[in-house]
Amino acid sequence: MTNSKRVYLFGNGQAEGRADMRNQLGGKGANLAEMNLIGVPVPPGFTITTDVCNEYYEIGKDKVVELLRDDVNRSMKHIEELTGQTFGDATNPLLVSVRSGARASMPGMMDTILNLGLNDEVVEGLARKTNNPRFAYDAYRRFVQMYGDVVMALKPVNKEDIDPFEEIIEKVKAEKGVKLDNELDVEDLKRLVVLFKEAILTRTGQEFPTNPVDQLWGAICAVFDSWMNDRAILYRKMEGIPAEWGTAVNVMAMVFGNMGQTSATGVCFSRNAATGENLFNGEWLVNAQGEDVVAGIRTPQQITKIGSQRWAELQGISEEERVTKYPSMEEVMPEIYNELNSIQQKLENHYRDMQDMEFTVQEGKLWFLQTRNGKRTGAAMVKIAMDLLSEGKIDEKTAVLRCEPQKLDELLHPVFDKNEVSKAVSLTRGLPASPGAACGQIVFFAEDADKWNKDGHKVILVRMETSPEDLAGMAAAEGILTARGGMTSHAAVVARGMGKCCVSGAGAVNVDYKARTIEINGKVLREGDYISINGSTGDVYDGEVKTQEAELSGDFAKLMELCDKYARLQVRTNADTPHDADVARKFGAVGIGLCRTEHMFFEAEKIVAMREMILSDTEEGRKQALSKLLPFQKNDFIGIFKAMNGYPVNIRLLDPPLHEFVPQDKKGQEEMAKDMGVTVDFIKQRVDSLSEHNPMLGHRGCRLGNTYPEITQTQTRAIISAACELKKQGLDPKPEIMVPLTGNVFEFEAQEKVIREEAAKVFAEEGIELSFKVGTMIEIPRAALTADCIARSAEYFSFGTNDLTQMTFGYSRDDIANFLPTYLNKKILTVDPFQVLDQRGVGQLIQMAVEKGRAVRPTLKCGICGEHGGEPSSVKYCDKLGLNYVSCSPFRVPIARLSAAQAAIENA
Amino acid sequence: MTNSKRVYLFGNGQAEGRADMRNQLGGKGANLAEMNLIGVPVPPGFTITTDVCNEYYEIGKDKVVELLRDDVNRSMKHIEELTGQTFGDATNPLLVSVRSGARASMPGMMDTILNLGLNDEVVEGLARKTNNPRFAYDAYRRFVQMYGDVVMALKPVNKEDIDPFEEIIEKVKAEKGVKLDNELDVEDLKRLVVLFKEAILTRTGQEFPTNPVDQLWGAICAVFDSWMNDRAILYRKMEGIPAEWGTAVNVMAMVFGNMGQTSATGVCFSRNAATGENLFNGEWLVNAQGEDVVAGIRTPQQITKIGSQRWAELQGISEEERVTKYPSMEEVMPEIYNELNSIQQKLENHYRDMQDMEFTVQEGKLWFLQTRNGKRTGAAMVKIAMDLLSEGKIDEKTAVLRCEPQKLDELLHPVFDKNEVSKAVSLTRGLPASPGAACGQIVFFAEDADKWNKDGHKVILVRMETSPEDLAGMAAAEGILTARGGMTSHAAVVARGMGKCCVSGAGAVNVDYKARTIEINGKVLREGDYISINGSTGDVYDGEVKTQEAELSGDFAKLMELCDKYARLQVRTNADTPHDADVARKFGAVGIGLCRTEHMFFEAEKIVAMREMILSDTEEGRKQALSKLLPFQKNDFIGIFKAMNGYPVNIRLLDPPLHEFVPQDKKGQEEMAKDMGVTVDFIKQRVDSLSEHNPMLGHRGCRLGNTYPEITQTQTRAIISAACELKKQGLDPKPEIMVPLTGNVFEFEAQEKVIREEAAKVFAEEGIELSFKVGTMIEIPRAALTADCIARSAEYFSFGTNDLTQMTFGYSRDDIANFLPTYLNKKILTVDPFQVLDQRGVGQLIQMAVEKGRAVRPTLKCGICGEHGGEPSSVKYCDKLGLNYVSCSPFRVPIARLSAAQAAIENA
Repeated sequence: MTNSKRVYLFGNGQAEGRADMRNQLGGKGANLAEMNLIGVPVPPGFTITTDVCNEYYEIGKDKVVELLRDDVNRSMKHIEELTGQTFGDATNPLLVSVRSGARASMPGMMDTILNLGLNDEVVEGLARKTNNPRFAYDAYRRFVQMYGDVVMALKPVNKEDIDPFEEIIEKVKAEKGVKLDNELDVEDLKRLVVLFKEAILTRTGQEFPTNPVDQLWGAICAVFDSWMNDRAILYRKMEGIPAEWGTAVNVMAMVFGNMGQTSATGVCFSRNAATGENLFNGEWLVNAQGEDVVAGIRTPQQITKIGSQRWAELQGISEEERVTKYPSMEEVMPEIYNELNSIQQKLENHYRDMQDMEFTVQEGKLWFLQTRNGKRTGAAMVKIAMDLLSEGKIDEKTAVLRCEPQKLDELLHPVFDKNEVSKAVSLTRGLPASPGAACGQIVFFAEDADKWNKDGHKVILVRMETSPEDLAGMAAAEGILTARGGMTSHAAVVARGMGKCCVSGAGAVNVDYKARTIEINGKVLREGDYISINGSTGDVYDGEVKTQEAELSGDFAKLMELCDKYARLQVRTNADTPHDADVARKFGAVGIGLCRTEHMFFEAEKIVAMREMILSDTEEGRKQALSKLLPFQKNDFIGIFKAMNGYPVNIRLLDPPLHEFVPQDKKGQEEMAKDMGVTVDFIKQRVDSLSEHNPMLGHRGCRLGNTYPEITQTQTRAIISAACELKKQGLDPKPEIMVPLTGNVFEFEAQEKVIREEAAKVFAEEGIELSFKVGTMIEIPRAALTADCIARSAEYFSFGTNDLTQMTFGYSRDDIANFLPTYLNKKILTVDPFQVLDQRGVGQLIQMAVEKGRAVRPTLKCGICGEHGGEPSSVKYCDKLGLNYVSCSPFRVPIARLSAAQAAIENA
Repeated sequence: MTNSKRVYLFGNGQAEGRADMRNQLGGKGANLAEMNLIGVPVPPGFTITTDVCNEYYEIGKDKVVELLRDDVNRSMKHIEELTGQTFGDATNPLLVSVRSGARASMPGMMDTILNLGLNDEVVEGLARKTNNPRFAYDAYRRFVQMYGDVVMALKPVNKEDIDPFEEIIEKVKAEKGVKLDNELDVEDLKRLVVLFKEAILTRTGQEFPTNPVDQLWGAICAVFDSWMNDRAILYRKMEGIPAEWGTAVNVMAMVFGNMGQTSATGVCFSRNAATGENLFNGEWLVNAQGEDVVAGIRTPQQITKIGSQRWAELQGISEEERVTKYPSMEEVMPEIYNELNSIQQKLENHYRDMQDMEFTVQEGKLWFLQTRNGKRTGAAMVKIAMDLLSEGKIDEKTAVLRCEPQKLDELLHPVFDKNEVSKAVSLTRGLPASPGAACGQIVFFAEDADKWNKDGHKVILVRMETSPEDLAGMAAAEGILTARGGMTSHAAVVARGMGKCCVSGAGAVNVDYKARTIEINGKVLREGDYISINGSTGDVYDGEVKTQEAELSGDFAKLMELCDKYARLQVRTNADTPHDADVARKFGAVGIGLCRTEHMFFEAEKIVAMREMILSDTEEGRKQALSKLLPFQKNDFIGIFKAMNGYPVNIRLLDPPLHEFVPQDKKGQEEMAKDMGVTVDFIKQRVDSLSEHNPMLGHRGCRLGNTYPEITQTQTRAIISAACELKKQGLDPKPEIMVPLTGNVFEFEAQEKVIREEAAKVFAEEGIELSFKVGTMIEIPRAALTADCIARSAEYFSFGTNDLTQMTFGYSRDDIANFLPTYLNKKILTVDPFQVLDQRGVGQLIQMAVEKGRAVRPTLKCGICGEHGGEPSSVKYCDKLGLNYVSCSPFRVPIARLSAAQAAIENA
């Protein structure tokens, strides 16, 4: 590392870096280099590599500055040469921006400083040179504000505080009796700079640096420091980005969108990031700096005319008013627009993906400041991939790989029930910032969202606007509603990234943080009141509006077809009812990987018979009680076999400990005693005798079936007789009977014997036979370790990764909350192993079991039926291990199918 | 199997089998063959192999009889030729015995039939031929009685019933007005036979078979059947004998010890089975059949004169009376005695081990019926091995291998406190049948012994005499006292095998089963009263007499030295207190393998501080509470380091979940609230918040240390400052600090950092340094699976096989009782995996961890500290895996040392 190049130059159509160097240069730096190479106008600058970020945390700030000093000085000279300006020179000053740029996009997570290089002398020179003192002093006050915030850490003391700089601005505006920033004149701005510097000194005890070189190093180090701030750490944790990746630092000559009416700044997308529609779109502001667009403080205008017209329609603004007040860039600056449009097409064609771009127009000259593959909703992701495929821009495998499996979840999100919504009271309409429908109780602060959510409430986070500090709260909310900000505001971008429903810029919403109320056209809602929002339309409704499931067709269906073309792993579903089985079939499941039977004992009449069985001391008594359950169970299986006709249905025999079927509370026991005609004491005694110290490791699974074989007999009879009945009707039921919690081959063999004997009896009685399989869960470490023995008798393995994770880690899933948060914070764990399969530990056991099992029985069918079966990285691992299938909840079937396809392509 | 030889002949100095064929012929059959080969007089006969027993259970009785018929017929002819007698012939009848004979000795477990071949005609012929009708009819009635019992299953209906045959005998004696069996004349015996046959027909519905050939097949099949009777199954389970071994059947010509005053029968040992003394000894009866000696109905006489004299002294019988009433065989039949003595020496020299032999003298001719290596007490085992070694009969390794590690336990058994016993009230004296001291409450029935024991009582089982049905009760009792029976009675033999204290033949004890009392010289004791017995002296005391630990020296010390010469594994101890550490040092432990620290929090003042810590919400509050605990803990460690001076002490950091330190009951919570000056509700709330669904898999082990690092800090400080203090005193403390429940290397590394930092602080404060190790428990499956990662940082591994077994099997040790008995019965498990290490599953993880760990850190020290560390088969497995040490409770240290030596010899 110490020998490698630390700084890469770019500018004027030349660059030392390239697009494929994003690991060293970060996404932004690599694309800045690439844009130079393909002829896109980019201000000159340089990139300090991500490796330096790691050095920064290894050897410390001072040593890194020493190592960089020569490179940075030489690079600044390079910028000076290309721009003809001089850094720190009052007559022809060079100003620069300093931005972070990590390997993976982390929007809003990292800090940025603009207009760097200004001090009391240079600002005067800038004023003289541009002949625009107001511009110069506005730039200066922005720089002092940003630098004070980011580098000198002058932040609001608490969340309800106003930003200290904003407080000063408000005070100055109040003294002057004006409302808007742009009503402040040069003298006001000068006064702001003085007051800002005073506030910095008072609050931080440090002078604002006047030497531009000191400013530059302060900013570079601040970017590196920002890599380890709480927001960045949280974002990385959510996205699974390793801390070792580091961030690059991009230093680039400033260009100004706020130099008058021929200047502008904007953000644009080569396609629609919400819907995927193949239509160039974006937002811009005349005479503004980029932060004004993203921060959502001024409502920006549309770049294209069609976009502008659509926007006006949504807002109920007439075409006349639109043309006057909110004209598009296409209409205002047609030539620049044409250049912009042609470059965006060039960039999309070059990167073969939807681009998210930032640009600035300085006095009629267009500069690109950034391009990257645009974040998008799940729906847009699928549509764009399918469109690019049909446009011939990418091939099938690329289309499959372009889709993030987790994001499909958004397409499966609920929408409002059409009947419900027609009756709902509409309060207002904002921007459709992130699709989906949500309803919940109003909260105003991210912390509350998090807290309420943990207490079991569904909440909508309502904010004037959101900021990166709100991230955790946004994740905890069902949806986000903001009063300010456009489609590219922080709230909108982050919500789309999360697949979370969001309505932004709902200007009619007046938020009162102190009173914890909102007022919309006279109607007041308080914290805790219900509200419903539609992120696909922007509608905001009073109260609770019921949601319903999404429908899947079109591009989604095409993508799924493609997946099945490439996937090797089959995708089954975990389904316990005919309804779940139906849903899963619609999502493309090719069988049931786990049909739990315990719910079949819980309904009214059934639970009585079940309890009768549990209370019985004799085998005879238990058999009698079970015989009452038999017809119910048979019926359940008939429904499931019908729904899955022709596909295998893997039925797990009774698994939970018996105490789950008896009431633990006094009242329940009294009722049960009455129902059963026995004393409460008798019930209490039996319940106590069933209680266990560690039920997870107790009398459950096949330990039940082996102590009470009559349970296994009854379940087998229900399964096999249901299948026989359907076969007689000409259907094709494919039962698989699964022994749970096997840890020892003899446990399995004893159960298998009971199953086969009972099945043979049923066949004889029914006068018909059908083939069925007998297999086992592998969910006890010892089962994996002795899989060679177990495969001797078991026809298939189904990995129950929930329990396997519990026992391999020794973590009780029900108790992990006491230490998991600490473990994640301390990075003892990087992810919750119950969500993402632990490949090193649990995965090792699975691999061992597959290898040992197939060594004995080469045709052994292996699948996974834990929650991990629908988690993309886990599905990919299952593909690598050569499993035959994964099984997951119905709503995760599409995610698993896509993951399976990607795995097959990646592992090929 | 179908092609192999099923029947092996022996007789007249020739034999088809050999001593080393015990797997096929059983111990008895192999030795009968061998005795023939070395010239010991043995009646002719044949052995049906153990493989046939397996065939019997596989293909069934009828097919096996078909397979055997020719072989058996030919073999019977062979016996007829050698004896000149004919089976079923009334003029010169051949009678045979049919006995079981398994690979491992199972005394009294299996059934035997004698005098087979008699019927109403043959008995007449026998009477004529022997000219002794009384003998003939006595043999006949014995045969009918035995056959009726064993083959035709005519048993007492319940335990308090008299045997149905004995009932008839008592009735006939009462009618005749006599007391003893031998007062019955021929006509009485004839009447008994008739009555016996009637009883058989009435009770079983079957006629007694008159055809000798039918009798023979019935008896052979009964032996095979007896392999699966409850007693045999229980015995095998206790001794770990596989059912697949099967039993052989030995058919041998009868010889009679009851043909008058020149006939006799006896049992003898080449050395003393209780003490190991090198002195020929045994018991005999003139004019008796073998069963009379073993059954303990007549009190037998001693074979040697010295034995007889010692016996008389113990019984308080004068030499005059002894010579008259109880003369030794040496005195009565000197010639036969000399032959017997010479053969016993020959046999011991041949087998190079103490022999347990049965013989019969028929009209002046000595026959050996059986020899085998004698069962012995632990003390005798050690002495005999050491004596045979010093006599040059065996070498060192053989001496080590001759000792059963588990039996050393007996030597560690308590003896009576000398002061106590001098004050104790002696009730009577019986025979010192099995050494050790015991006291407990009187029970009379095996079932009660078992039940009372399970209820937490210590009991002494008091019986007239014991029978194989009493096995389970004997195992549950502290000791056994019988009124009848000699040193070779059932009670004596079985108790010695179990290492259980036993006093037999205490004739002064009058047992009244119905009243559940005993009367001893006028003193009446009831069920539940306390009694104390000394199995080494035969003394019986009233009430409770305190016991004390055994002392270890002499042969035991020599054996331990030999062990250390050959052992590769070191043996440490699990000890939590200075006292335990002292005891373990005396037993030869070379360090502490597991020092649990939780008990250090439980004493009065400590628990208050501990609870203060648990109730505190802040780190500061917890630190304050912990600082109160620090001096106590430091003191504890000083004591332990002193006791183990110069030896490593491996200290496990706090492991159990915090809820174990707070009271769960209302009263305790009220007291705690008062102590702490807080409300009961507060306590209750905190206790509830600590409760877990599966505490075994919850917030414990290093999960505590990682959420509350201040606990680890405090413990480290206590350990290191204690060690520093002792080092300053010139001692040599060797602390090892162990992180519990590691499942992830980062968990370990976070704790290691806390430990090393705190230790460095202490060293700086104390101005002294010392070396210490930081290692981890491997008790979570994932720790074993990722041992390569963990060994990167951990300096040693200690396998916590208790928890590792829990998690590998998914068995909660506290809840296993709900299914373990069923699993053992159904042979799903052959042993309790918490007692005997599961090599296939848990052992596989250990092996994996050792290999992975040492691949990364070749010097990695590995040990085991679960309960398995003192279980011989587990210790041997640890040797095989190349562990460095095992650690076990102090009293199991000698057992582990012997096991380690045997392992090294066997695995060499």
